[in-house]
Parts: sequence; structure tokens; C-alpha cells
Amino acid sequence: MESYRFLYDIALILLSTKIFGLLTRKLQMPQVVGALIAGIIFGPALFNILHLPGFLEPFFLKPTDFLSHLSEIGVIVIMFSAGMTTDIHELKNAGKSGFLVALIGVLVPLGLGALLGFLFSPDEAGPNLILQHIFIGTILTATSVSITVETLKEIGKLNSKVGNTILAAALIDDVMGLVVLTIVTSLAGADVNIWMVLLKIVLFFVFVAVMAFLGIKGFTWYENRYNKNLHRFPLLAFVLCLGMAFVAERIFGVADIIGAFSAGVIIANTPKGAYIDSKFQPLSYLLLTPIFFANIGLKVAIPEMSWQIVVFAILLVVVAIGSKLIGCGLGAKACGFNWKESVQVGLGMACRGEVALIVANKGAAMGLMPDAYFGPVIIMVVCCAVFTPIALKIAFRVKPSLHAIPETEPSSPLVDRYELTAKLDDMIDEDARKLFFKEEQETPKTESTKNKK
Amino acid sequence: MESYRFLYDIALILLSTKIFGLLTRKLQMPQVVGALIAGIIFGPALFNILHLPGFLEPFFLKPTDFLSHLSEIGVIVIMFSAGMTTDIHELKNAGKSGFLVALIGVLVPLGLGALLGFLFSPDEAGPNLILQHIFIGTILTATSVSITVETLKEIGKLNSKVGNTILAAALIDDVMGLVVLTIVTSLAGADVNIWMVLLKIVLFFVFVAVMAFLGIKGFTWYENRYNKNLHRFPLLAFVLCLGMAFVAERIFGVADIIGAFSAGVIIANTPKGAYIDSKFQPLSYLLLTPIFFANIGLKVAIPEMSWQIVVFAILLVVVAIGSKLIGCGLGAKACGFNWKESVQVGLGMACRGEVALIVANKGAAMGLMPDAYFGPVIIMVVCCAVFTPIALKIAFRVKPSLHAIPETEPSSPLVDRYELTAKLDDMIDEDARKLFFKEEQETPKTESTKNKK
Repeated sequence: MESYRFLYDIALILLSTKIFGLLTRKLQMPQVVGALIAGIIFGPALFNILHLPGFLEPFFLKPTDFLSHLSEIGVIVIMFSAGMTTDIHELKNAGKSGFLVALIGVLVPLGLGALLGFLFSPDEAGPNLILQHIFIGTILTATSVSITVETLKEIGKLNSKVGNTILAAALIDDVMGLVVLTIVTSLAGADVNIWMVLLKIVLFFVFVAVMAFLGIKGFTWYENRYNKNLHRFPLLAFVLCLGMAFVAERIFGVADIIGAFSAGVIIANTPKGAYIDSKFQPLSYLLLTPIFFANIGLKVAIPEMSWQIVVFAILLVVVAIGSKLIGCGLGAKACGFNWKESVQVGLGMACRGEVALIVANKGAAMGLMPDAYFGPVIIMVVCCAVFTPIALKIAFRVKPSLHAIPETEPSSPLVDRYELTAKLDDMIDEDARKLFFKEEQETPKTESTKNKK
Repeated sequence: MESYRFLYDIALILLSTKIFGLLTRKLQMPQVVGALIAGIIFGPALFNILHLPGFLEPFFLKPTDFLSHLSEIGVIVIMFSAGMTTDIHELKNAGKSGFLVALIGVLVPLGLGALLGFLFSPDEAGPNLILQHIFIGTILTATSVSITVETLKEIGKLNSKVGNTILAAALIDDVMGLVVLTIVTSLAGADVNIWMVLLKIVLFFVFVAVMAFLGIKGFTWYENRYNKNLHRFPLLAFVLCLGMAFVAERIFGVADIIGAFSAGVIIANTPKGAYIDSKFQPLSYLLLTPIFFANIGLKVAIPEMSWQIVVFAILLVVVAIGSKLIGCGLGAKACGFNWKESVQVGLGMACRGEVALIVANKGAAMGLMPDAYFGPVIIMVVCCAVFTPIALKIAFRVKPSLHAIPETEPSSPLVDRYELTAKLDDMIDEDARKLFFKEEQETPKTESTKNKK
């Protein structure tokens, strides 16, 4: 293959993920669904299923070292960014209801997912067989709340008791899901002694606590030394992220993405956390995120899907939605919500997204999940994204076509924070316009001779 | 090697290039020099020369596929960004003096560099031997004006006749250097028929002109449809960049970096060009630029330097500075500058930087430059960076320690543009502070119970 082939690959991925992303957004699904579909359509899956003529092959994508390398760094940056938008102080504000909804909402999917994994267990036995079963449950733990937030915003219910409970529970749920992932991936490591593994996990959490203390102290001191925001702050934050990801794997046998996420949480608690976060966004959306998700799509090989896989996919969707509905719903009921509200909470927590895919990707790399399950996991994410907004609107007894009621003054800090980042981006854009508008307007017309004088 | 080794590599590169970059900046050298030094120090060069014990080896960097892949995308983004900061309309404002200084300032280094290449020619003959000689000249064509700008700013002479001529000439010089690179790399391609090659080059320029027309029309129309700046604009710009880079190589046999640069120039002329440029900056400084330059440093193998290479390095420095001093100086003299001013212009144009390294990198990849010359090219860039500010200050008869005279109101559009980007970054930072400051201040103290109500 030519040495410059990667230019075509990246261009095609960026363009197709964006186009499909915009299409899926029109259908009220997250853009990540579009990115996955783009990967499937331009990858080997569609090419093989349609038996396209050979001369078309160069136009299609193939998994390459180049793309998988970019994906590896992409997943680190995605998890780091996720950490930066996780405000750990809000955990204290989340309250008992948020905690209970999250806890039962993690345990039920974990259990039912493991059961599903057991039922579809591959024949061969192995030391990690139980972990492989549990891993299916692990994929199902983390809620993706963005679709729910958009839907609740649309029907004007985001700043309700149910909305706040969902936001709080989703936050805790992320952290719990990552704790489960930490334990499961550590157990799958090289160490045979389970006590050693558990000791390492405990030591890892001690390490994170120490890094949090030192990191926040150090960054706060350094960031406050300068009145200006400097390029070095995001750069040093990235070094912390990469360093903690490396140490997590190397010393503690814990998944690198957990280290990256922890670093993100630390950075979010430094004075210039928001500035640092804003600098990682272009890195994500311009290159790393589209490539990571398209690369997952590339790994799907539809023609190889057996009937077993198709049945597995259907059951995975049912378990994914059902387990959160039951788990989170029961949690809400236990906290004094009425049945209707409990169902609303359960449905609001049913969506899965980026984190499920990232966890699946990690599991496949560690041999805890067969590659053939990428298809079902993607189908699960897409189905949840289609199902949630429709079901939520029905649960709130609001017609889907109802005119949007805009939020006037959200009072919850959780809701506030959600709005702030979008606002910052707008302000940045406004600045760029103010500064450059005059000039950009002038240049096409005036052949100014100012500097000839 | 462990699958997560890249985390350590990138962390070390980012940290070391930043530290060395800040050190070299203290010494009034560009940060890229620091990045190169970091690559040399943490690469095989220093490890081998010091005969360090083997157990230290894991702490050092080695050229890996991962790093070279990131470098490849890095050089594309760097050239795209360079294109976006090249205001083609300013070419018209540059005037006769800027043009003449640039032209003679490109031809003399090209000729003298080729002569040097001829003198140090490897023994083996080949079809590309003449091109290999000319290539040494090609590396020397492009001026890096940033050090000169900083120095002139410091002594308060940026907005002078000499300063404006240097800015204008450096702009034209970049474009001319890329035209030379286009021709040289095309001739080194697979085509044996020289007329075919020249036809392809002409067709490539036609292609760029057509893309410029269509691209500016299309982007202007699309960008004006939305009042807001959207993520899709930088993304589509990146697609244009990658697409043009690919087509340049695939269809026209022209170096991909030329295609990327051309795309950057096109984007700069669209309404949201400045916004798009601002989004590529974090992509550069957070990941791609440090890795590209450190990767060049990694390729240097000091112990293998023969005496011939050392002599070559010394002569390369002399030719680099001398040829620009003579070429640009004569150009300035021919335009009516007096001798003192002509020397000032010549010295102001003597610096080389990123582009010289990128051209050398391309040449090495194409077999036009032996890898052993990376060391001399780096030495040349470093020496020019040390020499220029000192010599310029002497030429302006200003003591190097003189207190800085700040510019009050620069009137040249070239100078203006140079200041604008820095200003935008400050405004963005200000916004982030305004938005998040209150919140960040609050969080550590108040365990607010607002959303428990």
C-alpha cells in the first residue's frame, strides 16, 4: 500500500462519520451512532456482504496499524475528557436517591449481563471463562446520559426531581462502572494470586488518591502563578494523563483508560480545568474520536454473523434496557419515587454509549470478549439510542411532536455545568468573529497599499 | 514491547520537548530547537554515545511505528496550519522589494546548497544524483521569520521599512520554496519522462487554482449559512487538507505536504478561516508538533557521524547564513536600500526552522537525502537560531541588553495579522475564566445542597 494511503483513510473517516453523524442527529440519535455506521459501511463488512467487484476495494477502508494506533491514543483522550467533565464534588450533592439508583442500576445489569454471557458461553474452558461472562455484564454497567438530557430538555423536564436524580445517578454510575472494569480487567491480568490482584487494586486507589492530592496541589500552585492561560497547562495535564495511564497498566495491572479517566477528574479540580478541557475538544472531534469509533465499526464483520450471534444481539438489547429499567427503577422506588417516576428514572438511565464501546474495545484487546461480539454491542448501543427518547416521551405522557419548552433558569449545579461548556464554545466563536470579521470582510476587496508607503 | 508502551513514549516526548522548549526560549531560541534537543537526548543518539548500562534502555525512546505514524499526520497538520497563516492577499501588498529580496534569497541558497551537495556527493552514481545535490539547496530555501520578528519586536524595529520588507519577503520566500520543492520531488518520482513530470506539475497548479476557486466559493457559501461557528467547519477543512494532500501524491506525483499547504491557504480565505485555524492549534501543540520534531531528533545517530559529516555540518551552517545574507542583501540593495539596511534584511532572512526540517524529512523519505544528514540539518537550524538575534542586534547597533521598546500601534497589515492570533487566544482564556472562575472558586469550599431541595 502506498505510504500516503492514510491520507485517504482519514479523510474518508472524517467525512463519512460527520455526514452520518449529522444524519443520526437529525433522527435524534447521538453522533457516535453515525460514526459506527460509517465504519461499518466503508469497512470490510459492507464490502464483503455486497460482494462488490474488486476494483472498488481501494475505495474501502481496512483496519490498518495506522488507524489502530490513532485509536489507541484516541480512547485515552476520550476517557481523559470524560474524566474532565466528571465533577467529583457533585457526588456529594447527588444524595441518597442518586446513589441508590446508580448502585442497583449497576448491579442488576452486571448480574443479568453475566448470566447472558454464561448462556452464550463458548465451548472451550479457560481460567478466564467466568471473567468472560462477567465482562458482558461490565459492558452494560455504564449509562450514557446525553440522549436522556437532550430529550428531557426538549420536553422541559430536565430541571425536575426525576431529571436531577438521573443526572446524579449517571455520574455515580460512571464511577461505579469504572470500578467494576478495574476489578474485572485486573483479575484477567498475569497475576494468578487473587489476593495479590486485590492488593494491587487497593494500592491503585491509594495511588489515585495520592496523585489527586499532589496533582491538585501542584497544578493549582502552578496555574495560579500565571494570570494568563498558557499552552503548557493542557500539555502538562496530558502528560499527567499519559503517565497515570501508563503507571496503571505497568505497576498496578489496571486498565490504562482508568488511569486516564482518573487524571481527567484530577485536572477538572484545578483552577484552569475548564480551559484545559476546552483545548482537548478539537483534538477529539477533529481526529481521535471519529477514528476510534469508525475503527470499531471496521471490526464488525457482518457476513460472519452466525444465528447464535444474532440471537445474542437481540437478547443483549433486551437485557441492556430491561436491566437498567428494573435496577434503576427499583432504586428510585426505594427512595420514595412513585411508580410512574420510577419508570421514568429507569428509562432515563437505559441508554448506553461511548463508554460501553470503549469497555468492549478494551475487553476484546484483553481477550475477555470475542471480536464477534462487536456487532451485537454496536446494535445494542444503536437500539438503546432509538428506544430511549421515544419511551421517555411516552413515560412523561408527552406527545413526541410537542413544541419544545425552553428551560428558563436551571437551578441545579448539575444542569448548570452541563450548559456551561456549550456556552464557552459560543463565546470563543464570538471572539473570533469580533476580531477577524472586519479583516476578513476587507481582504477580498481592498488591495490595500498601506505597507508600501 | 508492551502494548501500552506508547503512553510512556508520548508522555516523555511531551514533557521533555516542553521543558527543553522553555529552556531554549529563555535563551531566545525557538521552542522547536528544544523539541529537537529533547529527541536527541532521549533518543538512541545520547544513549549510544554515553554507553549507558542496559537497564536504563527502557527509559529511552526508540523510533517506533506508532511515533512515525503520528509524525506523518503531524507534518500534514503543520503544513496545513502554515498554509492557514499565509495570507495570499498580502502577496499583492508585498511590493517589488519583498519580491526581489525573496527571489534572489531563494536562488542563491538553492545554488550554493546544490554546490555543497555536489562537493559532498556520495560515491555511487544514480539517476537522481543531480536531484540529491539540488535537494541540499532546497532545504536551505525557506526562511523562518519568527525569531527575526521576536528580535525586531524586542528592539522596537518590527514596524520599520526593513521589518516590513522582511515579513513580505519571508511570505513570498515560503511559497517559492514550496514551488522548488514541488519541482524537485516531482522529478524524483517514478515517471522517467521529464515532460510528463513538468506537465503534471503544471496540471497540479491548475488543480490547486480550481480547488481554490471551488473551495473558497463552497466554504464561503456553507460557512455563511450559519451564524454560529460549528465543529463541522474545521472538520471539513481537515477533509479538504487530507484530500488535497492525497490527490497531490496520487494523481500528480507532488509531495503531499504541498497539497496540505495549498488547502491551508484556501481555508485562510474563507469567512471562518481564523476560527478554523484556532481549532488546529491544540491539535498541533498538544500532540503532533512535539512528536514530529522529537521524532526527527530520534533519527539522529551522533556516534555514527564521520568527519565528513562534521565538515559538511559546518559548511552547511556557513552556506545557510551566507547565502541568505548575500541573496537577500543583494535583493534589498537592488531595491534602493542602503548597505546597512541591506545587511539588516539579509540577516533578518537568515534563520531557518520548521520548514527546513519538514523538507529534509520529506527528502529522506524519498531517498533524496541520506539519513546521516539529519544531524547537520538540525545543527544548521540551531546555529541559525543562535546567530540571527545576536547578529541582528549588532546590525541595528543596539546593545543586546537594551530595554525592550514596546510597539504602540503597528500599522502594517502584515504586522497586525501576526498579533491577532495571539490576541484571540488571550480572549478565549479570558472567557473561560469569566465563565468558570466563580464556580471553580466555590466548589472546594461549599458543599452546596441546592439540588437536594
